[in-house]
Amino acid sequence: MANFVWDAERQKRTGVAEAVFCSGKSAQDLADIVTHNIAHSLPLLMTRLTQAQWQSLPISLQQQLSYDQVSQTACANTPNITQEPQHVCIVCAGTSDLSVAREAQRTLEFNGLAAPLIADVGVAGLWRLMDRIEEIRRYKIIIAVAGMEGALFSVLAGLVSAPVIAVPSAVGYGVSENGQAALTSALSSCAPGVLTVNINNGFGAAVAAIKTLRQFE
Amino acid sequence: MANFVWDAERQKRTGVAEAVFCSGKSAQDLADIVTHNIAHSLPLLMTRLTQAQWQSLPISLQQQLSYDQVSQTACANTPNITQEPQHVCIVCAGTSDLSVAREAQRTLEFNGLAAPLIADVGVAGLWRLMDRIEEIRRYKIIIAVAGMEGALFSVLAGLVSAPVIAVPSAVGYGVSENGQAALTSALSSCAPGVLTVNINNGFGAAVAAIKTLRQFE
Amino acid sequence: MANFVWDAERQKRTGVAEAVFCSGKSAQDLADIVTHNIAHSLPLLMTRLTQAQWQSLPISLQQQLSYDQVSQTACANTPNITQEPQHVCIVCAGTSDLSVAREAQRTLEFNGLAAPLIADVGVAGLWRLMDRIEEIRRYKIIIAVAGMEGALFSVLAGLVSAPVIAVPSAVGYGVSENGQAALTSALSSCAPGVLTVNINNGFGAAVAAIKTLRQFE
Amino acid sequence: MANFVWDAERQKRTGVAEAVFCSGKSAQDLADIVTHNIAHSLPLLMTRLTQAQWQSLPISLQQQLSYDQVSQTACANTPNITQEPQHVCIVCAGTSDLSVAREAQRTLEFNGLAAPLIADVGVAGLWRLMDRIEEIRRYKIIIAVAGMEGALFSVLAGLVSAPVIAVPSAVGYGVSENGQAALTSALSSCAPGVLTVNINNGFGAAVAAIKTLRQFE
Amino acid sequence: MANFVWDAERQKRTGVAEAVFCSGKSAQDLADIVTHNIAHSLPLLMTRLTQAQWQSLPISLQQQLSYDQVSQTACANTPNITQEPQHVCIVCAGTSDLSVAREAQRTLEFNGLAAPLIADVGVAGLWRLMDRIEEIRRYKIIIAVAGMEGALFSVLAGLVSAPVIAVPSAVGYGVSENGQAALTSALSSCAPGVLTVNINNGFGAAVAAIKTLRQFE
Amino acid sequence: MANFVWDAERQKRTGVAEAVFCSGKSAQDLADIVTHNIAHSLPLLMTRLTQAQWQSLPISLQQQLSYDQVSQTACANTPNITQEPQHVCIVCAGTSDLSVAREAQRTLEFNGLAAPLIADVGVAGLWRLMDRIEEIRRYKIIIAVAGMEGALFSVLAGLVSAPVIAVPSAVGYGVSENGQAALTSALSSCAPGVLTVNINNGFGAAVAAIKTLRQFE
Amino acid sequence: MANFVWDAERQKRTGVAEAVFCSGKSAQDLADIVTHNIAHSLPLLMTRLTQAQWQSLPISLQQQLSYDQVSQTACANTPNITQEPQHVCIVCAGTSDLSVAREAQRTLEFNGLAAPLIADVGVAGLWRLMDRIEEIRRYKIIIAVAGMEGALFSVLAGLVSAPVIAVPSAVGYGVSENGQAALTSALSSCAPGVLTVNINNGFGAAVAAIKTLRQFE
Amino acid sequence: MANFVWDAERQKRTGVAEAVFCSGKSAQDLADIVTHNIAHSLPLLMTRLTQAQWQSLPISLQQQLSYDQVSQTACANTPNITQEPQHVCIVCAGTSDLSVAREAQRTLEFNGLAAPLIADVGVAGLWRLMDRIEEIRRYKIIIAVAGMEGALFSVLAGLVSAPVIAVPSAVGYGVSENGQAALTSALSSCAPGVLTVNINNGFGAAVAAIKTLRQFE
Repeated sequence: MANFVWDAERQKRTGVAEAVFCSGKSAQDLADIVTHNIAHSLPLLMTRLTQAQWQSLPISLQQQLSYDQVSQTACANTPNITQEPQHVCIVCAGTSDLSVAREAQRTLEFNGLAAPLIADVGVAGLWRLMDRIEEIRRYKIIIAVAGMEGALFSVLAGLVSAPVIAVPSAVGYGVSENGQAALTSALSSCAPGVLTVNINNGFGAAVAAIKTLRQFE
Repeated sequence: MANFVWDAERQKRTGVAEAVFCSGKSAQDLADIVTHNIAHSLPLLMTRLTQAQWQSLPISLQQQLSYDQVSQTACANTPNITQEPQHVCIVCAGTSDLSVAREAQRTLEFNGLAAPLIADVGVAGLWRLMDRIEEIRRYKIIIAVAGMEGALFSVLAGLVSAPVIAVPSAVGYGVSENGQAALTSALSSCAPGVLTVNINNGFGAAVAAIKTLRQFE
Repeated sequence: MANFVWDAERQKRTGVAEAVFCSGKSAQDLADIVTHNIAHSLPLLMTRLTQAQWQSLPISLQQQLSYDQVSQTACANTPNITQEPQHVCIVCAGTSDLSVAREAQRTLEFNGLAAPLIADVGVAGLWRLMDRIEEIRRYKIIIAVAGMEGALFSVLAGLVSAPVIAVPSAVGYGVSENGQAALTSALSSCAPGVLTVNINNGFGAAVAAIKTLRQFE
Repeated sequence: MANFVWDAERQKRTGVAEAVFCSGKSAQDLADIVTHNIAHSLPLLMTRLTQAQWQSLPISLQQQLSYDQVSQTACANTPNITQEPQHVCIVCAGTSDLSVAREAQRTLEFNGLAAPLIADVGVAGLWRLMDRIEEIRRYKIIIAVAGMEGALFSVLAGLVSAPVIAVPSAVGYGVSENGQAALTSALSSCAPGVLTVNINNGFGAAVAAIKTLRQFE
Repeated sequence: MANFVWDAERQKRTGVAEAVFCSGKSAQDLADIVTHNIAHSLPLLMTRLTQAQWQSLPISLQQQLSYDQVSQTACANTPNITQEPQHVCIVCAGTSDLSVAREAQRTLEFNGLAAPLIADVGVAGLWRLMDRIEEIRRYKIIIAVAGMEGALFSVLAGLVSAPVIAVPSAVGYGVSENGQAALTSALSSCAPGVLTVNINNGFGAAVAAIKTLRQFE
Repeated sequence: MANFVWDAERQKRTGVAEAVFCSGKSAQDLADIVTHNIAHSLPLLMTRLTQAQWQSLPISLQQQLSYDQVSQTACANTPNITQEPQHVCIVCAGTSDLSVAREAQRTLEFNGLAAPLIADVGVAGLWRLMDRIEEIRRYKIIIAVAGMEGALFSVLAGLVSAPVIAVPSAVGYGVSENGQAALTSALSSCAPGVLTVNINNGFGAAVAAIKTLRQFE
Repeated sequence: MANFVWDAERQKRTGVAEAVFCSGKSAQDLADIVTHNIAHSLPLLMTRLTQAQWQSLPISLQQQLSYDQVSQTACANTPNITQEPQHVCIVCAGTSDLSVAREAQRTLEFNGLAAPLIADVGVAGLWRLMDRIEEIRRYKIIIAVAGMEGALFSVLAGLVSAPVIAVPSAVGYGVSENGQAALTSALSSCAPGVLTVNINNGFGAAVAAIKTLRQFE
Repeated sequence: MANFVWDAERQKRTGVAEAVFCSGKSAQDLADIVTHNIAHSLPLLMTRLTQAQWQSLPISLQQQLSYDQVSQTACANTPNITQEPQHVCIVCAGTSDLSVAREAQRTLEFNGLAAPLIADVGVAGLWRLMDRIEEIRRYKIIIAVAGMEGALFSVLAGLVSAPVIAVPSAVGYGVSENGQAALTSALSSCAPGVLTVNINNGFGAAVAAIKTLRQFE
């Protein structure tokens, strides 16, 4: 494990435990990391762990992890999740955004925070969003996930008093391929108070929400 | 006037009279065109006629034109405008979009069609739009003008049964400078039935509306 | 089917039945949707349904759907198609554009409208287009599909009085890869009255045509 | 003032008073807005008010506004600023970023919040930042402004437990002209917890900070 | 004249005399060049010589040059132009393209070749082009200048057997601003045999035509 | 073969026989085309015919075609190649460019023109090019193929009096991935007389050369 | 081996032996090159040699090469590596950058220079870098490899007096996909003295370091 | 001078004295900086100091500075320049590149290093470069400045054994406007050993050269 130094101090320093971004990592690297953290009873969150990578792990390691295929995340030694009160709500525009939305949800859970996920409230059917808006208004931070043209970010930010963390998702084609249109929509929202993270970065949105909440505990 | 041949047959062939796109044209070219059309009692619509270009025209020609500074258009020999029934409605997100919205309105008027302009119904304050939505739903074609992130296009298209012609406007800065974010929003709208024209092209949106209406007269 | 709420009211509200954009959806999600709509005798249009996704559906469901491989669409409970009079004509530049053109045609049919498809009239051989132009001029709305440099959009719009809905197709390579050159051609056409949808969006073009026709019934 | 409807309810609904983005507005529009708000004793924040626009206002109106040339902002009827406790800190990389940083500071002040501005702590001289890091760590939200390559965002986010709101500034040339390099740095920071707003959008960063603080009062 | 070495051998080596690209050159540099070439009776072609630069030259030098304001070119010691037979024809889409088309024409003349310029045959009015097509077909090389979407290149190349040298012009706005749409159209033409030069490069198109003709003399 | 109309008149009209761009065509479409042309003894050039597509053709058809794997071209009924005199020379920068260079060579041969191919004369080893420059100077048209930064185009154009048709190839990575850097180099060459075609478009370069030669026969 | 001429003189002329960039080369081409160099006892460095390409080589050739899977390089006839004194140090931000960093290291070794590789010192955990900074300061040239936002380049350049050769790596997603964000960071670093090579170009960085060192031997 | 802290320690730490990038700085800021450094007898290099900014300085300060209009640099307290031996050579492609080349030269001089500037050796006239190549080969580091397509970088790097620091200049138009084509050429040079800095960054190239030389003193 020459290439790997676990940053056990990170949680103390920044309030959030280190996570492993698995994209591009080899089967051996991944196995080393899992083995290490389990051996030391360290919490472990793995993101962008494809099903192929997951299946490349020895069964013995798989059994110690909780893998979620939708979000491509795996966890070990997750703390107990505090159910009440919930401060963060995750909202997404369509079922295609669920993978990113779940990455945010799993990251929050891994840090002890339960958060509801309200799916399929895209603005093409505005009444779906309006049906849920009172519920959404109860939360202190909103994480919104949307691809295509990302109109959800502006509509939401105009309707709630909480800050909106926009996660553009790589859902779309043509000019919205790879999430570019949703990203520019988030950044240039006509409703002030929208904060943006990189395309598909559900993890980053969750970490920012956690860092914010930790400031006010 | 060696460089200029008036296409008097265009109206017959395509249903819309030729207009003069004045951007980059010299004072002499512009004066030649005005003189020619007035001498022949031909209708004349000039677009993108900056105030400087307008002022470069001889006073005698100015007096024969109706100039609108907001939309940078000038007309001569405009037909009578048919007030009833109105089929096209122009909607814009903010006061900064008025220049483009007025270009569409003036083009419709030049072709004999009155059309109301509903301004300042951007989605950051959704209730403003909702207050007017029943009125907007009465029209057969909606021309929508928006800059910034252009969320208005999707919200509108989800609320009305008429086709929406989206005109991205070059209102914004940073990633939405020059209308790029609004353009990609229009093209990748999650609400089907949005049709798009080039950035700031209020004239083109109006012409498409006119061509459509003429098919069903 | 927790992630899926059928918008049965959409047809009433916007004049067009909801369709399912299948790109990126899992086999299970797709099977759920088909089962649901067939059970409730609801019309169903599935777009971007790859052959692999189609084959992943249970045979029993496949038998209830009409699948078209060229356009990657599947339908169920399609209404009877009204053959006369036809108001929309689909024109495409080359055989490579057929997939997109057929998506438009299938969407029109799913909404009860027959529409002819005139293929292989690209401008490199202008006489091919001129041979068909009188036929094309009979229609009230033209849907034009073209990749490469998309010159067809401007040539057509200069020859007909109907509005032209341009669908740039992702046919090309180098600078026209992914349809970018055709898209910018459509948006900046020197012939006014061209309306544009996203690259490959045959579905969106058809929906806009349907919405327009419904306004004048 | 036909084009202008003051949204007096916005503060109640979203927790932040409406501001006027003056870019592109005419002298008459600006004068109308100022006159209206002063007549009704409404708070008024004007952003992107160039010195030329400022000077175009009647002296009688200028006397009722506090204008700040660095940030191009003007205020009227600003509430008393609460000095203690301070929760937001603004950090910027160089003196060229001061205009944007001051826009954030003025927006916070206009909403009653004092916030210190720590300038000239760019990472090219890391010790300057390290000299101030303990002070910065005392705040609950950090607004960081940087142009060029925007390395400050990642370095800061790795050193503090507060969330970092990154404001890329249009400071640079060549590949970093217009703030693009700083923007992509903010979005792709290797340190999680960085939240981004549009280039030069000091106002938006401040509004997001205010919205966040209001949730936890 | 330390910074300037005249390449008198270029004409022998490449068949085309050196020209001076004046963009960004100072008044002193320009005066030095003119003085030098006139003193040595060398042919001189200056391109992109703005009116301001032209006026900055001493009257005594101006009198030795033939300046053309449309094309922003100045010549001295131009050889006699061979009127017959003419092998190159310049075609342009609209009057806005005349500046670039004239640059090509002046460059041909400077190298002794007369070439007709056929203006205003854009494809939005296809019959204008068809009226002239037999005339155009008489030439061995066609230089075509077009901005906006540049559809002219493909239409022409499908109608003539001569090679078409496409010069995209920076005429347009929105997505065709700066000539980008016309450039991608030229490069991805569905009609093979289109050759492209840089945006606005009428000079380069003419030089390529001259080089070609010289090969077959 | 409903989707396919052979343009047998093209050779007469433009001087070059029609070719089939096979990219994206189905096995059935390709078989139909081959069967048709062989049945009618028509010349046939197929470009971008991948090895997989080639192998999908029935053996009986394969036997009637000459397939070249490097250039991914197949021919039938090719005319006799005229060996003398040769007027076109193909030059490429490295072995990675051979595929594109061979496409040009095969297209020339299919139209009866032999043309030598000089490979591996990239400018990183300038002496390799200088060793061959006298030979290259003998030709009337040079087709140059280069990827990476495409410096070959400018160096060549400065050394020969023939026009240079630049074919940027998609050889490179990072900023030169997909041929973009070579394309911009070709278009902005400091040596006038460079003409450019789309990335990898060896076919188009050859057609332009043939069209030119045909003018002067 | 018609397409291949070994540039045995390159080492003498530029101080660095020629290397073979294997991307896109066929199995036969690669085997020819290896056979040739081994037969002539020439040094051989192959870069971007994928595992599939490696396995396509005959076992007999494989046995004469030293293959490194991480960096995708193979060497033969490598000179003895000089261990002392070491002048170049390779630093990388994360384990995902190891492939590129190792390509640089292998290239240095192939030219006789040992160089340490310090991995996992990204700026998100600044203390990791600070722990090693004294060691890094001992070297005369620093090669730094980083993806994502590339903040490492600026931080390093502000801390050391040696020149920093930045190698942006294609590690990231969304706006940093393909290394674009890291590249613009390197080029626009606020710390002067950063020199940049193409994305993933570990080889080029090493060659530049070797060329520099050779000047001062 | 609240916004300004002179980094007097920078020279010790990184080997190069701090310089002032004047772009966007106010007249007052500039006067403060000059006054401060002259009062403390500190060396001062100001870059991107436009003539307008220069003229805005009080005459008394101007008299203490040496201003160079071509490079837009001003110096005070410059050390004596060491004439021998010279290790760095600056090469540029055309007279339009002189501004950037001089910025590099002035920066070297300000750090005590004389460096010759060889202008007008662009590759369109390769013999000009070959005439000087033996002279250029005598230097240990080459700084090359080129705009347009930047072919000079590759040609030079293939001819010399010294490392080449490429400075793309914003000389060009169309696709090479703003230096983009030259930048991508530098980064993707087929000749290894090219190192690149930002567009127009003559200062950065010089600093990198100085840092390198200091390592080997």
